[in-house]
Amino acid sequence: MKVLVTGFDPFDQEKINPAYEAVKKLPNEIAGARLVKREIPTVFNKSFILLKEIVAAEQPDITICVGQAGGRYKISVERVAINIDDARIPDNEDQQPVDKQIVVNGPAAYFANLPIKKMTAAMQDQKIPAQISNTAGTFVCNHIMYNLLHLIAEQYPAMQGGFIHVPFIPQQVLDKKDQASMSLIDISRGLKFAIKAAVNNFAV
Amino acid sequence: MKVLVTGFDPFDQEKINPAYEAVKKLPNEIAGARLVKREIPTVFNKSFILLKEIVAAEQPDITICVGQAGGRYKISVERVAINIDDARIPDNEDQQPVDKQIVVNGPAAYFANLPIKKMTAAMQDQKIPAQISNTAGTFVCNHIMYNLLHLIAEQYPAMQGGFIHVPFIPQQVLDKKDQASMSLIDISRGLKFAIKAAVNNFAV
Amino acid sequence: MKVLVTGFDPFDQEKINPAYEAVKKLPNEIAGARLVKREIPTVFNKSFILLKEIVAAEQPDITICVGQAGGRYKISVERVAINIDDARIPDNEDQQPVDKQIVVNGPAAYFANLPIKKMTAAMQDQKIPAQISNTAGTFVCNHIMYNLLHLIAEQYPAMQGGFIHVPFIPQQVLDKKDQASMSLIDISRGLKFAIKAAVNNFAV
Amino acid sequence: MKVLVTGFDPFDQEKINPAYEAVKKLPNEIAGARLVKREIPTVFNKSFILLKEIVAAEQPDITICVGQAGGRYKISVERVAINIDDARIPDNEDQQPVDKQIVVNGPAAYFANLPIKKMTAAMQDQKIPAQISNTAGTFVCNHIMYNLLHLIAEQYPAMQGGFIHVPFIPQQVLDKKDQASMSLIDISRGLKFAIKAAVNNFAV
Repeated sequence: MKVLVTGFDPFDQEKINPAYEAVKKLPNEIAGARLVKREIPTVFNKSFILLKEIVAAEQPDITICVGQAGGRYKISVERVAINIDDARIPDNEDQQPVDKQIVVNGPAAYFANLPIKKMTAAMQDQKIPAQISNTAGTFVCNHIMYNLLHLIAEQYPAMQGGFIHVPFIPQQVLDKKDQASMSLIDISRGLKFAIKAAVNNFAV
Repeated sequence: MKVLVTGFDPFDQEKINPAYEAVKKLPNEIAGARLVKREIPTVFNKSFILLKEIVAAEQPDITICVGQAGGRYKISVERVAINIDDARIPDNEDQQPVDKQIVVNGPAAYFANLPIKKMTAAMQDQKIPAQISNTAGTFVCNHIMYNLLHLIAEQYPAMQGGFIHVPFIPQQVLDKKDQASMSLIDISRGLKFAIKAAVNNFAV
Repeated sequence: MKVLVTGFDPFDQEKINPAYEAVKKLPNEIAGARLVKREIPTVFNKSFILLKEIVAAEQPDITICVGQAGGRYKISVERVAINIDDARIPDNEDQQPVDKQIVVNGPAAYFANLPIKKMTAAMQDQKIPAQISNTAGTFVCNHIMYNLLHLIAEQYPAMQGGFIHVPFIPQQVLDKKDQASMSLIDISRGLKFAIKAAVNNFAV
Repeated sequence: MKVLVTGFDPFDQEKINPAYEAVKKLPNEIAGARLVKREIPTVFNKSFILLKEIVAAEQPDITICVGQAGGRYKISVERVAINIDDARIPDNEDQQPVDKQIVVNGPAAYFANLPIKKMTAAMQDQKIPAQISNTAGTFVCNHIMYNLLHLIAEQYPAMQGGFIHVPFIPQQVLDKKDQASMSLIDISRGLKFAIKAAVNNFAV
């Protein structure tokens, strides 16, 4: 069994993206499943072109994309992706789409087909603050999640996929006022137990 | 050289107080100074009676009391303690003083005589979110800080003293909404570097 | 032309719901359109049964449901409703559905077909803090919004509909810590200009 | 009986200061006391030189200075001013003192000698979010409050004085994320009832 885990590169003036930093620290095997870890650019379209290639090459059973949600207090397992790009800031190649459908005439939304409640509970059981989130925003994170779930619906019906948002890490908030953070160790440990719950659920 | 570091016991329905948990994890020696670590009850008066006994017995060069400030995002080195007890909640022995002078006719406030800016900078240098705080509140934390600084002013003019507030740790916010936390490892490491800065400054 | 505006009754231990209070204060006519104002119970299913009856009786051109989103800083025009009831707290008749589809085999989501950007801009132009929101939650607010948009899709294709979340009003946060509020006058004025923008857009 | 109420001018890139805007809207008489309203520059030293002149000329019975505390959720009656200027940003004449005593060898702090609890309760009774605050910061607000209370202690022992911090008003947070605000009407009404409580208490 194989799990693909991706993390975005830094954006919005940050020098680091805790998403990929945490993904890098994951073990190579969790609950008997092999992990494939990849960095993805924070760029509309290009991010998904790359993801699609990786999925085609690796044929994972589960794909989990991970991104930074600065300002959040807990690791957030996303419930749903919506069919819209609406960027408040430019992406890493200066694209800033406004109210643009991701897939023209695609469904308004896709629900993650991962066991999001079990994944959240698995993190909480490890004393790691975690929650279900009902919005992945309308930036590149939602973009890749929607595209991933559309790809699953269209071409890989047996695959499970979804998205996890992680908070800032402490070094990112040194100069920020009233911004929560979580240690990289806890984020990575949270991801590990979330993935473990997904793998165990899949095997059933 | 000797440093006394105290941490409060749990209060306000919490099962743990990250203050003493972090103090316990400190090394026994920092920058050549020996550490004495003690737990203090979250109780008006009794907390200071105990602190005074420990100070008399141990004769520390530096005394740093540590407490929990749930809701804060950063480790906070307190600048000042004010001469008032005004409790929003009862302490651990059900005392809830309102607008009561700590030391009758004592000064309105004492500034910590620790190098608070250097201590804060030392934590930030280690990538640990830290700040100066201008209020230690009006509960037992401010109570012990004021009493400590009054004791220093009256009886131990060579001693340096102050107070550090630490955030919740992750396990305390699992069921709380929008509450920041910091890992116990980072809190304890922050305290270590804050103490190191105080010791190095004292030695000069 | 006719606009139906609904507001929920109080829930979750609140004695007042700013949503219907603000709706009540709206004028009876905005930009030439007649307003029909109704209170709706914060109850799964029953709320929509009533809404459906009102819509059938009144045949409005535009329907806007308004609800309270305690903790938000701005008036929030909702972009999307998702096909799930997942209640963190019981509704006003003690129902607490978990991960339950609102419409079995219905679409995952519906986008509001109101001019949400124009409505938000109209409020900002009046110096009233307003924003687009990408989640209406998974409680009765999202429930009624999804049902309304499903009803529009199935039976009233010419109707426009959506949902607006409003903050607490000041009297609700007197005893709360760090909770934003907005005056009832500003909320009601915000709604008025949002409705005006919707009416003017519809007429075009 | 006479009450002097001052408000600061705008600072830190704001175009408006809700403090003086709210002061301007106050009636000219409250509970039988005449109000004198003045704007004060957000400048270290110069602000107090002006305040001292006004006090000498007007001989008020009560002096209340009002300033903006962006980010706060409630009107805050300040309990205490501390003897230190420590500016995170420059004042309106580009002064940025660091760890500088306001009055050399002055007391560490002064408590407001206004009835702060009664003033806070009077606002809450009017459904206006209000609280006691234990820090006025270390910028010009604390500077003027400390200087005022020092002046009272040294030269006007019969005068009562203190400081009130007010939140942003809505127009200031239009482009800010997650920042609380309060309507100017509510702020001004809050000040009115706080002053009324101070006047009634003084008369006793």
